[in-house]
Amino acid sequence: MKPSIPKGTRDFGQEEMAARNYIFDTIRSVYRTYGYVQIETPAMENLSTLLGKYGDEGDKLLFRILNSGDAFSGVDFEECRNEDGSLNSNKVSMKVCEKGLRYDLTVPFARYVVQHQNEIAFPFRRFQIQPVWRADRPQKGRYREFYQCDADVIGSKSQLNELELVQIVDRVFTRFGINVAIKINNRKVLTGLAEIAGFPDKVTDITVAIDKLDKIGLEAVEAEMKERGLTDQAVAVIEPVLLLEGTTAEKIATMRGLMQGKSASGIVSETGLLGLDELDELFGFIEAAGVGQKVEMDLSLARGLNYYTGAIFEVKALDYAIGSICGGGRYDNLTGIFGLPGMSGVGISFGADRIYDVLKGLDKFPKDIAGSATVLFANMDAEALSYIIPLVKSLREAGVACEIYPDKSKLKKQFDYADRKGIPFVSINGGDEAVSGIVNLKNLSSGEQKTFARDDLEGMKAFFAAR
Amino acid sequence: MKPSIPKGTRDFGQEEMAARNYIFDTIRSVYRTYGYVQIETPAMENLSTLLGKYGDEGDKLLFRILNSGDAFSGVDFEECRNEDGSLNSNKVSMKVCEKGLRYDLTVPFARYVVQHQNEIAFPFRRFQIQPVWRADRPQKGRYREFYQCDADVIGSKSQLNELELVQIVDRVFTRFGINVAIKINNRKVLTGLAEIAGFPDKVTDITVAIDKLDKIGLEAVEAEMKERGLTDQAVAVIEPVLLLEGTTAEKIATMRGLMQGKSASGIVSETGLLGLDELDELFGFIEAAGVGQKVEMDLSLARGLNYYTGAIFEVKALDYAIGSICGGGRYDNLTGIFGLPGMSGVGISFGADRIYDVLKGLDKFPKDIAGSATVLFANMDAEALSYIIPLVKSLREAGVACEIYPDKSKLKKQFDYADRKGIPFVSINGGDEAVSGIVNLKNLSSGEQKTFARDDLEGMKAFFAAR
Repeated sequence: MKPSIPKGTRDFGQEEMAARNYIFDTIRSVYRTYGYVQIETPAMENLSTLLGKYGDEGDKLLFRILNSGDAFSGVDFEECRNEDGSLNSNKVSMKVCEKGLRYDLTVPFARYVVQHQNEIAFPFRRFQIQPVWRADRPQKGRYREFYQCDADVIGSKSQLNELELVQIVDRVFTRFGINVAIKINNRKVLTGLAEIAGFPDKVTDITVAIDKLDKIGLEAVEAEMKERGLTDQAVAVIEPVLLLEGTTAEKIATMRGLMQGKSASGIVSETGLLGLDELDELFGFIEAAGVGQKVEMDLSLARGLNYYTGAIFEVKALDYAIGSICGGGRYDNLTGIFGLPGMSGVGISFGADRIYDVLKGLDKFPKDIAGSATVLFANMDAEALSYIIPLVKSLREAGVACEIYPDKSKLKKQFDYADRKGIPFVSINGGDEAVSGIVNLKNLSSGEQKTFARDDLEGMKAFFAAR
Repeated sequence: MKPSIPKGTRDFGQEEMAARNYIFDTIRSVYRTYGYVQIETPAMENLSTLLGKYGDEGDKLLFRILNSGDAFSGVDFEECRNEDGSLNSNKVSMKVCEKGLRYDLTVPFARYVVQHQNEIAFPFRRFQIQPVWRADRPQKGRYREFYQCDADVIGSKSQLNELELVQIVDRVFTRFGINVAIKINNRKVLTGLAEIAGFPDKVTDITVAIDKLDKIGLEAVEAEMKERGLTDQAVAVIEPVLLLEGTTAEKIATMRGLMQGKSASGIVSETGLLGLDELDELFGFIEAAGVGQKVEMDLSLARGLNYYTGAIFEVKALDYAIGSICGGGRYDNLTGIFGLPGMSGVGISFGADRIYDVLKGLDKFPKDIAGSATVLFANMDAEALSYIIPLVKSLREAGVACEIYPDKSKLKKQFDYADRKGIPFVSINGGDEAVSGIVNLKNLSSGEQKTFARDDLEGMKAFFAAR
């Protein structure tokens, strides 16, 4: 009989909210210093906006909202049958659902840009921190409602945008105290590699194989490429990429030679060269800017292969085993699906749930974010109450979070309450204190007690701050 | 072909977001100083949690979410027909929808308290700022998705809680610079009034009539009460209430006499007396605390009559014609519907959309909340860029929101961009500035220009702050 919430969803109580607000506030404040402005879009989008944007699998994972009112009257179920006569749920749902819950923040952003294109000053830098919903099978770390924290800039092809996103990632994780590796690749280089290997349609196969180099070694990677249909000659073209060594500049120089026709195939890839130019410029910017976290070119990185067209980013925590905690890339035609072609953009997304796990696992959450009040004023009697009500009002107006225990319960009960809520100070004042115009404060963890004149707000604040 | 969003929903761009964040941040920070802690609940609740909690009309306004997967296969439509054989949409929806979007924050809060009762330290003060969804017919000022900003305390019957909610309202609107009247009534007094009139089942009729006193006058109110089925004798009992004069204490004293049997009917109302005790205590607290905004007892106030059991609050703007902008009250058995009886609570809810309209209408939004960057660095050439990238990085780390225009466009285009986005300062630096190690800053609205040494971050910040 105890009430519950839908599977894959979560309630967030005081401590989790404080921790999550710390994560969101940090990301938000860094986005702001880079001139990104916040927008919000509705939870519900028209299904026509969402369908077909995430592949067949994504369409199945959309939460659809039943039309309000008399949704089923007049529906012709005969039009909604499979060939064997059974009811086709998808066809029925198209007749009774016009809206769905947003699946990510990228498609709503593209829709927003097209819908508001005349009000927007391009290049448009926006960030958005809102929940999204997916009807995935719930499992550890995978939820049906979760927040995304996206920043995208649209309407500029400059690699300066890529640099600034790398700087944002650097700054955010440095503020979190998390050591990360920021891995960078470029989709055009992967395309070029497939081209010079003579298998332009096998970008995914080649990338998936290369990605295993660290785990399975050179020979196994080459064997896998052959299994995936590459010829010996194609593998010979790719081998020098697997053996790349040196600085990023040296690696780019070697790759440039291969793309210029110096590989075993002799094929030139203009796309690959363009990708190398982009990487070269970006790493030049990164060197000029001085990025504190580890940044590395990783030619096996293949995140969002069907989606990105230029830079690809992925961030991993160095001291905690968990998947990617941030990622993104450049896409050349995000708004084309809504009728506005030729807008290039680049964006990143922080994974708040995983960052929460890393901060918790590494014990990196600041100690002072608990979200509870700073001091509990005990409730003694009517006389004391009329003494502390104006005092507490002044403290609150000075920014101190105070609670007055609302009921005249036993002091032990009031203390237990402070303890359970993590309120670090208590104040017990009765008639004597009222007459003398003083205030007693006690630090619950150290046991230290101090008495202040009623008007000495600054003294009290200093006592609170020194805990 | 231009994409759109579902009717009754909204996109929030840069300026609206900045204004809304100002509203939410202000309310949140005041809630915090009173020891209220933030929680969040899922957008989707089980329909069993939501249905039957908002009346028949509310059930119809719930957005229902189609079960994911093969929702319609196996549904026996024959079980879902009306008597005339037509399909009953509600019955079908009960078979294909298990979840709905939250309709308010109160029922999810009650569900939360019951579900997490063993983790919660009572009295539990929580606030919650999240969107809710209602399938209402959209019209001016009424949306299908809107934010609620609720604070409730549950597990304490003390009128101190009512005081603190009044103080929160006082503080929030004072910080907004909005003059308001905070109207207070008590449901038990209304019950008592109906009891001493001899019509205990006519609380609503009596209250609705009294509410019109200011508009239509004494005689018309008395006529309306008779139309609504009250006898001449009952009206004679109520007349002294309509003629109440004096201070709040004097009014309470007069009312107490009536409830004690000194009315024309001679009936005593224990419930009414209890309500007067509560009002008396609350107004005593309010006097001790010193509330800056106007606070008045209003015996005609009848907000949420079927819901509240004690104090009732309503807040109106004094200088702007719009409905109630905040309201609330005490309920004695909110969690009883989920199997946890005997928990008394009291809460308030700020109407963010109306507060937005009032702040906009009275031009009370602060000027510095725009949300755009403070300064745009023009993009001149590669040399200048490598000069400003580290400089801008330092400014950002010092908390200054900066943009570098990402493309080497004409300066006019870059200036227009700053203008359209409301960026107040621009900085143009080329090779000469790089060689001299200086930074030019220009205030776009005053035209004032100043030059700083590259490392003089404090000087630049002072120039930005002085605009």
